[in-house]
Amino acid sequence: MAAAFHSGDTSDLPAIPAGTAISGRTRLFAVLGDPVAQVMAPAMMNRLFAESRVDAVMIPVEVFSSDLAVVVGGLKRIANLDGILVTVPHKLAACSQADRLSHAARLAGSVNALRREADGMWSGDNFDGEGFVRGLLRAGRAVAGKRFALVGAGGAGVSIAVAVLQAGASALSIVDTDPPRAVALAGRLAAHWPGRAQAAEILDPASDVVVNATPLGLRADDPLPFGLDGLPQHAVIADIIMKPAETRLLREAAARGLGTHPGLPMLSEQIPLYREFFRIP
Amino acid sequence: MAAAFHSGDTSDLPAIPAGTAISGRTRLFAVLGDPVAQVMAPAMMNRLFAESRVDAVMIPVEVFSSDLAVVVGGLKRIANLDGILVTVPHKLAACSQADRLSHAARLAGSVNALRREADGMWSGDNFDGEGFVRGLLRAGRAVAGKRFALVGAGGAGVSIAVAVLQAGASALSIVDTDPPRAVALAGRLAAHWPGRAQAAEILDPASDVVVNATPLGLRADDPLPFGLDGLPQHAVIADIIMKPAETRLLREAAARGLGTHPGLPMLSEQIPLYREFFRIP
Repeated sequence: MAAAFHSGDTSDLPAIPAGTAISGRTRLFAVLGDPVAQVMAPAMMNRLFAESRVDAVMIPVEVFSSDLAVVVGGLKRIANLDGILVTVPHKLAACSQADRLSHAARLAGSVNALRREADGMWSGDNFDGEGFVRGLLRAGRAVAGKRFALVGAGGAGVSIAVAVLQAGASALSIVDTDPPRAVALAGRLAAHWPGRAQAAEILDPASDVVVNATPLGLRADDPLPFGLDGLPQHAVIADIIMKPAETRLLREAAARGLGTHPGLPMLSEQIPLYREFFRIP
Repeated sequence: MAAAFHSGDTSDLPAIPAGTAISGRTRLFAVLGDPVAQVMAPAMMNRLFAESRVDAVMIPVEVFSSDLAVVVGGLKRIANLDGILVTVPHKLAACSQADRLSHAARLAGSVNALRREADGMWSGDNFDGEGFVRGLLRAGRAVAGKRFALVGAGGAGVSIAVAVLQAGASALSIVDTDPPRAVALAGRLAAHWPGRAQAAEILDPASDVVVNATPLGLRADDPLPFGLDGLPQHAVIADIIMKPAETRLLREAAARGLGTHPGLPMLSEQIPLYREFFRIP
């Protein structure tokens, strides 16, 4: 718990000091995760603030699951803090921190963005799925009419599930190491898109797009989240891991001649969505 | 409570974006106040972090008194937040947020700095008084053997009271608009420095140094915290208000030919103390 300053090896320190020009008037945004060292939202959002000439900063907030409620409860009472982004592993639990949920967030049961409203209440939404779909489309991959397989029904996965169905995916099979979680998600989705989503124990071999929405791949020695045998040659393997940019899953998929789609677009496509949500001029 | 972004008038925006180079690995420090727009600690501490090549930022945290406990409770559970500075009006209430208090903080009943210890507990200290005394000495003003009058027994005032007695002031009279507060402070001090501190209803006319430790002077239309009539010509009027740098009190004192001492040195002299307290290499 003690301070872990960089000392000795300073090779990875930024050339420009991190806090240049933060004043008492600077507005705050936070991104919550555990771990948090890998988050790229501060770099992207702080660039957006700079380009928009907005005196605000996004800071990384490392919070353990057992502390989420007390930390978010505190952040929400900071008068100059206007918004919160939520990342692994807190997106599901963060739902209960919102006073109001968007339709997509309620359906997904997951929140990755919270903002203070004019009346002091906090609204939650989740842009992971929309960011993911926008990234696929921008990469020239179709979503409408395609069969998706989702591996991992966690905080990002559930949002992706909602978004691909909303964007017209013809089928979605959901695999999770915790099968009841996949069944619960499929049940919520079935109420809106009857017959298109189902929980599965193994990958649908007819999938056009397979999405890794598990954290496997964050660490170099992680096992693959799923095997690639039996997938059709035209299948696209999409990963939501951003660091490393090319996971072992994507490397092995490319080696087999399958299509690949990296994790970063899901975040970069969300920046304009965050901008609108946080009302950044 | 809604976002108050700078828009339209951007003349006071920093040339360098506030959040340049904040990453997921940046460590956090916070300064708490209400209001917080005037705080200068972020500028000073962030310069220190830059000079020390420490990847950390100090952020301003605006928190209302009614929210202090929940906000500090949340901040203390942020794993990458290592320290907190406390300013008006929270220094007295922040005492109860520390698991351990320094001798000076306990005697003053006031905390302006909190740090996480290796065992996860939080320690509180107050460097206002030591910063104030160092500033006076550096300006060539004597403390030992001098008669002090303190106006305002709030969070900074109580710390100044302890420090001037520790530094050898021969007498300290304490005036507060809430007389029991002055009496309580004098009582705590009397146990350590018998016969040197006393509560007073009016300014001791034999004072060598009179300290404004009230918030009066922060706003242009504030009344003077005390009248200057009857003070000896050699008296020094010290203000702890930092913005504006020259308060009306100091202007009127100077016009009468009295000595003056501004507010900024109390903070700038504390930066090396914070550095040591926060273990910044």
